[in-house]
Formats: sequence, C-alpha cells, structure tokens
Amino acid sequence: MNNYRLRIEFDGTDFHGWQIQPGVRTVQRELQEALSGLLGSGVRVIGCGRTDAGVHALGFTCNFFADTRMEPDQIRRALAGRLPVDIVVHECASADDSFHARYSCVARSYQYKITTAPTAVFRRVLAYTSYRLDCDRMSEGARLLVGEHDFTSFARAPLDENVSPVCHVLDASLGRDGAVISFDVKADRFLHHMVRNMVGTLIEVGRGRFDPERVGEILGKKDRGEAGPTAPACGLTLVEAHYPVG
Amino acid sequence: MNNYRLRIEFDGTDFHGWQIQPGVRTVQRELQEALSGLLGSGVRVIGCGRTDAGVHALGFTCNFFADTRMEPDQIRRALAGRLPVDIVVHECASADDSFHARYSCVARSYQYKITTAPTAVFRRVLAYTSYRLDCDRMSEGARLLVGEHDFTSFARAPLDENVSPVCHVLDASLGRDGAVISFDVKADRFLHHMVRNMVGTLIEVGRGRFDPERVGEILGKKDRGEAGPTAPACGLTLVEAHYPVG
Repeated sequence: MNNYRLRIEFDGTDFHGWQIQPGVRTVQRELQEALSGLLGSGVRVIGCGRTDAGVHALGFTCNFFADTRMEPDQIRRALAGRLPVDIVVHECASADDSFHARYSCVARSYQYKITTAPTAVFRRVLAYTSYRLDCDRMSEGARLLVGEHDFTSFARAPLDENVSPVCHVLDASLGRDGAVISFDVKADRFLHHMVRNMVGTLIEVGRGRFDPERVGEILGKKDRGEAGPTAPACGLTLVEAHYPVG
Repeated sequence: MNNYRLRIEFDGTDFHGWQIQPGVRTVQRELQEALSGLLGSGVRVIGCGRTDAGVHALGFTCNFFADTRMEPDQIRRALAGRLPVDIVVHECASADDSFHARYSCVARSYQYKITTAPTAVFRRVLAYTSYRLDCDRMSEGARLLVGEHDFTSFARAPLDENVSPVCHVLDASLGRDGAVISFDVKADRFLHHMVRNMVGTLIEVGRGRFDPERVGEILGKKDRGEAGPTAPACGLTLVEAHYPVG
C-alpha cells in the first residue's frame, strides 16, 4: 500500500462540509467515490480537518492509502474526469507512510472576506454586511487574538470535554480593498466555529459597538455569550494546511 | 411619467443573457417582473445592450418610465426584496426624459478573466485554459486592436447587413496576477461576440501559435475565419456603461 497526498480546492456552496454524513453531499464522499471508481476498492480519505457546510477551500490537504502502480500525477489527471466541477485536485504526491493529513498538520490558514457593498457576482465567496466598518479598529482588535489563549469564548458552545480550548494563533490581520475587508488568521488548531465567531466579534468592533480592547476581555471571560454572533459560512475559505518540511 | 435610471450587477451563470426571450430566464424579464410587481403596471426596461448567456455584469445600466411618487432610493430598496440573489441594484436615480440606456451610451468597458490554473471556487467568473500564456505577447497583440477599425474578423458571422462593422476601441490592455490574466477593453460599441473573439485570438498569440502582429493582419482581412475561437462566456464581465456627464 502506498500513501498519497492530495491538495484540493473546493467551492463549499453546495456541500455539507468535508466530512461524510448520511444523506447529504460532502466533499469526502465525492472524493472517496471518485477514488474508489478509479482504484477499484473502498479507498478511505483522511482530511486535514472538518469544514462547515458552505465553507470553501483553496488548499485543503488529504491523504489515502492505495495498492496501485499509477503514478501520482496520473491519479491527479484521472481524478479530474471523475470529480464534479466544484472540486479540483491541484496536486497528488507520494507521501511517507507516516504522513497523516490531520495529525501531521502543524497549522492551518484561513481567510474570511466581508463586503460592505451587496454583490451578485461574488455572493458565494463574500459575506455581506450593511454596517460601515472601521478596518483600523478591527486590526487593533485582531492583534489581541494573537498568541496562546483559551478560546472558549470563540468556540461553539458547549465545548466537547475531550477537546482542549487552548489554541496558538500565529497571525491575525486585516486588509481592505475597496468594499472588501479580508481577515487572515493562522493557528496551530481551530475550535468549531472559531474563525466565524472571531469575525462576528470583529464586525462588532468595526461598526463601533465593541471597543477593540474588548476582544481581549472576551478571551478572558471564557464564555461564548460574550463574543459576537457567528459570521456566515460563505465568507470563509481554508487557504492552506501546513506541514513540517521534508 | 418619470424616467428612472438603474445601475445593476448580475451573475450571468444562470441567465440566458439580458434580453427577454420566450421560455428562458433572462435578467430583463426578472427585472421587469419585479418592477411591475412594485409599480403595478407593465413596466418596460431598456438595457444598455444585450449580453450573451453566461456573461456577467458589474455595472449594467438600464432605464424605465413609471408613474409613481416613490423616491428613486425607495425603489432601489424595495427592488432588493423582489429580485433573485443573482441580481443586485446598486443605484436608482431620476433621469432626464431624454435619457435612453442604449442610445445615450457612449462607450462600454468589459473585462475578460482567464486562469491558467484550474479552479473550483472561481469557476463561474474565470475561463480556464491549459496553455501557458505569455502575457507580454498578448499585450503587444492587444495594442493593435486600439483605434477605429472594421472588426468584421472579430464578429460572429454572418454580420447583420444593417450593422456597421466599424468600432472605435479606446483601450485594450492586459494584466497578470498569479495564474489570472485580465483583458480590459473599452469601445464606443461592440459587435456580437467581439470581446470573446478578441480573447480567443489573444490566447493564440499568448500560447505562441500566432505572432502578435497577426492581430493587425486579421483585422485587415475582414474575415471571421482568420481570428481565433470564441472564448467561453463565463470569463466575460460588462464592467461599466459610459454616458456623457451631466
């Protein structure tokens, strides 16, 4: 059995997220079906993490074991003809047997995009808000998220008892391009809804309801009720899963 | 009767273009139905031009006459609740009686976006090509399109006898951002398929099949058979319709 690593992109609009669940269309199911059709057996694909329904990915990494003589790039090309238009495989490579898309992953980068002007053409990848947003205030608030903290306030409640609420946020910054504000965040791990709750909170800061310092206070309270609402899934994209080099 | 001018955006993916045709979903039909529902009579909307099925618009202008006391901005807000998600009204303003979205229009700007990397997330707004493209060569070719020329070679054949093939291209330039190449073109008027045939030809230049100078020779031949293939509709966006100021 050889271990293969895939780097894929998907438009999350019409998926109930990555993970296989009964009765719904998921990325993992489409990919496993395409791979099983190609390699002739029940291939199981391991993803770098779950994604919520409606969330997109530009650089989602996954891996699978298969007993085949096909070259990795042959697999990539053959998959292209078997996958729906909302999944694209950018890369297929051989990996060490020890490579595990989820457990080997050392960090993940997400981008969230908000627009303050309604849009038809980009409605699937931008989240619209009617508030005027002060991007500098939001940047100030975002800086307080950087570092190792207990993110209970930003996780979907109730938190699973077996899951540590401590994450190390390596980067959190904002940028503006016309009516579009982008929030880029990188961390060793993320709790469920964590990016979307960060964004919902930063919108409160940007529109003037919260002071930027309040972001730090919210962290300290360890209470989901303190943070802002969960921002819509459509604005969120998993940009990259990071692995140790070599 | 008052004359109202609308500036709208639409995602062309699920429309058979702007113009009303029997049995298909078009932007003009959706807009007229929403306006008639709102203003209570058979409102007729005049567009700045036709668009092909699948072509998008960020700044499409249209106008209509109605006998109502509603303020233009009230109309805009009321329309938002009556239109499907793939049409957005950005502006509604009062216009002189003489304003006609098509006949008053002095120029139109289009953008065409090509990607050389396959994409799932942006597949509705980018046209994919597997060729390696030399953007500098394409720029050189595009420069030869600027000016007043007979564009028969770039129009869908056969050309309507009543239509002049002479257009004045005011600007034609290319830009690159990673895997995405953008072609921006502005002209007083465009023939049917003209932008898409320009792009199909510039792709031949970019991949090395045509020399850049050939673009000028193709113009001179006045024969559709000389130019490249028609590039797909999904990469094309009407960016703006231009009108005399005041």
